[in-house]
Order: sequence, then C-alpha cells, then structure tokens
Amino acid sequence: MGLLTKDIETLNDAFAHLLQTTYYAEKQITEALPKMIEKATSPELKQGFQTHLRETENHVKRLEQVFRMGNADPQEATCPAIDGIIKAGNSMAGNIADAHVLDAALTSAAQMVEHYEIAQYGSLIAWARELGRDDCAKLLGETLAEEKATDEKLTRLAESRVNRTAKQHAAE
Amino acid sequence: MGLLTKDIETLNDAFAHLLQTTYYAEKQITEALPKMIEKATSPELKQGFQTHLRETENHVKRLEQVFRMGNADPQEATCPAIDGIIKAGNSMAGNIADAHVLDAALTSAAQMVEHYEIAQYGSLIAWARELGRDDCAKLLGETLAEEKATDEKLTRLAESRVNRTAKQHAAE
Repeated sequence: MGLLTKDIETLNDAFAHLLQTTYYAEKQITEALPKMIEKATSPELKQGFQTHLRETENHVKRLEQVFRMGNADPQEATCPAIDGIIKAGNSMAGNIADAHVLDAALTSAAQMVEHYEIAQYGSLIAWARELGRDDCAKLLGETLAEEKATDEKLTRLAESRVNRTAKQHAAE
Repeated sequence: MGLLTKDIETLNDAFAHLLQTTYYAEKQITEALPKMIEKATSPELKQGFQTHLRETENHVKRLEQVFRMGNADPQEATCPAIDGIIKAGNSMAGNIADAHVLDAALTSAAQMVEHYEIAQYGSLIAWARELGRDDCAKLLGETLAEEKATDEKLTRLAESRVNRTAKQHAAE
C-alpha cells in the first residue's frame, strides 16, 4: 500500500478488517454479558447468558487462531456497530424498573447482538472460502453454529417464559 | 407514569419503545440505501438495493399502520444501534478504492443491517402476540418475511458473483 491510496485494496484486506472488527465485537460482548447476567431475574435467562459468556470467551480464542493461521497478530479495530447495539440495549434496560419486563428486554437485546454476529461470521466465512482458506472458514463456522443456536435458545426462552411472565406482571 | 419512575413499566411500553426505534431505523435505511445504490458496481447488486429501497419505504408505511392500530401517532426514537451499523458500513466502504471489493463490502454491510432488522421484527412480533395483538404481529410478519428474503438474496448474490469478482480482481 502506498501513499494516497485507500487502506483496503483486496478482498483479503477486507477480510482482515472484518476479522479485526469481529475480534473487537467479541471482546466488547465478554464485557457486556456479566452486566446482563447481573440484571437478569429469570434463572433460565441468567444460566443462558452464563453459558454464552463461556462460549464467547472461546470465540475470542478461535478468532486469535484465525489471525495466527493468516500469520498475523490478533488486533482489534473499533466497531461503531457493536458499540451502538450494546448502547441501545443498555439505554432500554436502564429505563425499565420491572424485573420481568427487564428480562424480556434483555432477551431481545441479546438477540440483536446475536444477529449482528451471525451476519459478521456469515461474511467472514464466505470471504475465507473465496480466498481459498477453507481451514479458516471451518473454524469460523463452529462459532457461527453456536451463535445461531444461542439465538434459537433465546427465542424459545422468550416465547415459553420470559414474555409471558412480563405480560402477566403487567396485568396485575 | 409518575415522577421519579422509569419510563418503561410494562411489556406494552417496551413494545412501544421498540416500535419507535424500529421506525427510526427504517427511516435511516431509506436514507442510506440511495448512497449504496450509487456506490455499487454490479448491476444485480444495484438492482437488489433498488428493490429493497422500495420495500423499505413500504416497511415505514406498515409501521405507521401499526402505530395507528395502537391509537398512537408514529414517532421516532433515536437508535444508536442502527446509527452504528450504518456508520461501520460507511467507514469500511470509504476505505475501499477497488469497485469489486467495494461491492463485496456493500453486500456484507447490507446483510448486517438486515440481520439487525430481523432481530428487531422478531422481538416486535413475539411481544405483539404476547400482548394479544395478533393483527399487529401479522402485519409485522410480512415485513420480517421480506427482510429474511433480502438477506437470502444477498447471500446468493455474494456467493455467486460479488465475492468471486472481488477475488479475481485481487488476483490480477
């Protein structure tokens, strides 16, 4: 890359940039989850967040492995998207006094994070394959499968308990 | 709601707040898409964004209908999440000189927006059903189906053409 050129010139550069923002995002999520665990009331939701925190710590390690597979040092690039998603969740949660309505909002906020990550890993995997790095795609695919499973678990939890409890409480 | 209480007390309040942030998000997307259409090179991608702009304009109208069904005036609530997602996409796109790599990044950025919206509509629909408003849930479900279809279309487009072209160009 020379002077006066833009930073991202090839698909490989775009992959590297997205890898760095995803690495930043996963690290922000490991910081956000303990606060969500603390705020949650439903034992199932607390447990779900705890399981996902352990998974997320593993996602960080997998990303570090992908960096090494590309002979690069793990590096974060600030991502205003995940910052905004976490800020929106905190802002909504901060406005809720009722514990059960808060559980419903926390579940929803977590699903917004999950969906954003599903999109990030989807692009990373497609680009890795295009770049002939099926080994990286396979590893990233393990994380994608866990993000999708977490999203589905949150949907089941919301539909089976969290929203109903929030509604019943509001009707009291 | 009285003095010294938090704004969101019931699941209905949480639904109203999410409806307002989703309304804001859809409006921001109608402003972002014309710039993405302008930047895209692939005719299929340009066409895909144009189709989605028309759909998004219709999503705004559907949300206005849901507000009216709840006897409320359509109102926007600023959403740092969609602001951050659009900012991240613009920031990445602004760093790319090559037209084909830019197409791959624009496709990826659009999928991040889609996934965020899929999560927003997923929560709105679950909460509307819980609140006994199947009529609102049905209308919101029409939008959700379109968001999912757009995401799948972008995946097919990325895998079939956009990424390959970006890769070939990089190898020249």
